[in-house]
Amino acid sequence: MNHSNIRVNSQRLWKSLLDLSKIGATEKGGVCRVALTDRDREGRDLVTQWLRDAGMSVRIDQLGNIFARRPGTSKSHAAVATGSHIDTQPSGGKFDGNYGVLAGLEVVRVLNEHSISTSLPVEICIWTNEEGSRFTPVMMGSGGWAGVHALDGLLQRKDIDGISVGEELHRIGYAGPEPLGPTDRHPTYTRYFEAHIEQGPVLEASEKLIGVVTGALGTRWFDVEISGLDAHAGSTPMHLRKDALRAAARLIDVVHEIGVSSSPESRGTVGSLRVYPNSRNTIPGKVNLTVDFRSENESGLSKMEDRLHIETARLEKLLNVTINLTKVSEFKACEFDSECIQIVEDAANLLQLSNMRLISGAGHDAIHVAKVCPTSMIFIPCKDGISHNEIEEIKPEEAEAGANVLLHAILRAAS
Amino acid sequence: MNHSNIRVNSQRLWKSLLDLSKIGATEKGGVCRVALTDRDREGRDLVTQWLRDAGMSVRIDQLGNIFARRPGTSKSHAAVATGSHIDTQPSGGKFDGNYGVLAGLEVVRVLNEHSISTSLPVEICIWTNEEGSRFTPVMMGSGGWAGVHALDGLLQRKDIDGISVGEELHRIGYAGPEPLGPTDRHPTYTRYFEAHIEQGPVLEASEKLIGVVTGALGTRWFDVEISGLDAHAGSTPMHLRKDALRAAARLIDVVHEIGVSSSPESRGTVGSLRVYPNSRNTIPGKVNLTVDFRSENESGLSKMEDRLHIETARLEKLLNVTINLTKVSEFKACEFDSECIQIVEDAANLLQLSNMRLISGAGHDAIHVAKVCPTSMIFIPCKDGISHNEIEEIKPEEAEAGANVLLHAILRAAS
Repeated sequence: MNHSNIRVNSQRLWKSLLDLSKIGATEKGGVCRVALTDRDREGRDLVTQWLRDAGMSVRIDQLGNIFARRPGTSKSHAAVATGSHIDTQPSGGKFDGNYGVLAGLEVVRVLNEHSISTSLPVEICIWTNEEGSRFTPVMMGSGGWAGVHALDGLLQRKDIDGISVGEELHRIGYAGPEPLGPTDRHPTYTRYFEAHIEQGPVLEASEKLIGVVTGALGTRWFDVEISGLDAHAGSTPMHLRKDALRAAARLIDVVHEIGVSSSPESRGTVGSLRVYPNSRNTIPGKVNLTVDFRSENESGLSKMEDRLHIETARLEKLLNVTINLTKVSEFKACEFDSECIQIVEDAANLLQLSNMRLISGAGHDAIHVAKVCPTSMIFIPCKDGISHNEIEEIKPEEAEAGANVLLHAILRAAS
Repeated sequence: MNHSNIRVNSQRLWKSLLDLSKIGATEKGGVCRVALTDRDREGRDLVTQWLRDAGMSVRIDQLGNIFARRPGTSKSHAAVATGSHIDTQPSGGKFDGNYGVLAGLEVVRVLNEHSISTSLPVEICIWTNEEGSRFTPVMMGSGGWAGVHALDGLLQRKDIDGISVGEELHRIGYAGPEPLGPTDRHPTYTRYFEAHIEQGPVLEASEKLIGVVTGALGTRWFDVEISGLDAHAGSTPMHLRKDALRAAARLIDVVHEIGVSSSPESRGTVGSLRVYPNSRNTIPGKVNLTVDFRSENESGLSKMEDRLHIETARLEKLLNVTINLTKVSEFKACEFDSECIQIVEDAANLLQLSNMRLISGAGHDAIHVAKVCPTSMIFIPCKDGISHNEIEEIKPEEAEAGANVLLHAILRAAS
């Protein structure tokens, strides 16, 4: 049967987004629904009810991940899945995460309305604590499910008040009975698609409605300490200075230049910087700063790191300072499954929606899921690229476009 | 009579410096003798006793300035003067200020030993609260004496605990009866010479023992706010950023370049900088920083300020940010009296001491005194140019050299 004319109900999807955003709504139009709080419970209760109302069977695992299943017609236990998260940043927006879960719900509602049976089961996942703002690590639920982190360690993670993930899961009633991770009864997914707002400005600047996400940038983080000599700004001539902040300024330029010149997808950012003694009339003797490098592959990251070492050595000699570089963390770049990518792109083209391939610069649950099963993502634009902010905004027609792509990707993958 | 062979007693001078430094001595070898504290009183008591022991008559004015006079043989009430301050920074050194006062005392002791009479009286001034670390403004005593600030306002200045200058002067017994400023009986000085450690690295780098100080740099201070847009360091490509810290880096370069290229004595310093939100993986949306410009004349300062405005306007366009510049204070440049300068230079040459002319980059009481009478200063090196620090250090032979220059400058000016 050809379902190519089927479309989601845009108004119903938008209403669900706004209804969910009322839980933890902030004065400035955002949402504060931090992981494993009472608000998170209210959000989980509401969406779980909606999933059940759509005829889905709901399971909850030991880490509070929620899985809702719409059965398929074949004997396969393996499902096609979609999903995201419904926890938010403390000053978060209405769409980050929530959009992916409710786009999945809308897909199931449309399938139900049209009495469409799929061969494979369709699942919607709600991953626990994607944001990581209360409990580290970020992307906790999907990371646990994919075997990146062990369950016991995650349950013992504590927030700033010393309250653990395990305690909070019990308290809000989401410490489920299901084992964490794929099982024989609920094996790993045949394909996983996650719809998400871009959280960046590329689609908007390119005037495209759909981002076909091919992977995620790898990251290397460095701490840098620059040591010079603090001295009087009046009595120390320019040529006798050991100005740590001037060296920092040149290093900021270097990091930017490495980000610009390494590849179109590379990024180089100095986000944090502190000056000592930070006095108006004293030449700074010490600066601490951070470097965040991103690239689509490991060789790119290694070249960026090599250039950073070369340039800091050059600046040390040129500016008479000492520069210490420490690598503090690294995440490998992720390449999504080529067939999943193609399915998303085909769906966008079928729907005649303007689209482009791009790489995610931010972290998402899909990056962990991709370690276990074929995965890709669907991005829609967000206004000015702003996210993790109460003014985060999308248009109803953008929400609709992404959900239609998700619908047709799932229809094809589950047929 | 030719006194060209007379020299100070180096050991006696050094012993006086170390004896005074015991009052408020810190564990790290520095001195904490903040203005108008009990320690300041102890220091004043000790040095005043030394001055009286040297046969001088001591007056104290309403602002606590101490004046000690050695009579001259002529009828002139107008004296040749020297002096400095004996208050210190909270983590100060042994020599800043103290050296100028005790070099003056050593000069008088030598004159006494050799029974040398001068035509004009010789005075030693101890100016109240030069450091300004407890009560603003800095250089309070000399500024009040020179008529830069009114007495009432200064007496009402309060420290962080709400205690006023007037209260503390009474408490420590240094609210004197003498009117503030020159009078008929004690008119303005015919010449004023102040010996001081350089508090900078120029003499040491130039391998000179004596700095013949020709004036002091003027200062203009600015506050700068750079506004961009904070955004995700991963999902925002390099060409779509409004990075306030990158603009700050370019501005730091600009300020340095203006300092280097304007004149050999010009300075350009960014001493303080704060980044918002200052998070490792967020492109900075706002930076606040300070600019400190110094030059030997007003036209130089104006050119520096003009260039700052031109360059910030250029950076705004180039980097897609907004930059707000606010001038927060300015001090005019000071030129010392050409005859006083020549007297100091001649004395250094008479003594065959290596010397060079230079301009003070820091503030000194002499800069206020110069508004009222012909003035110059004598600098001696300090180790690594470090001052306002407990590790501030000079050598006995440097102290001796400066005091000998002061001796011969006073001998000539008072003859």
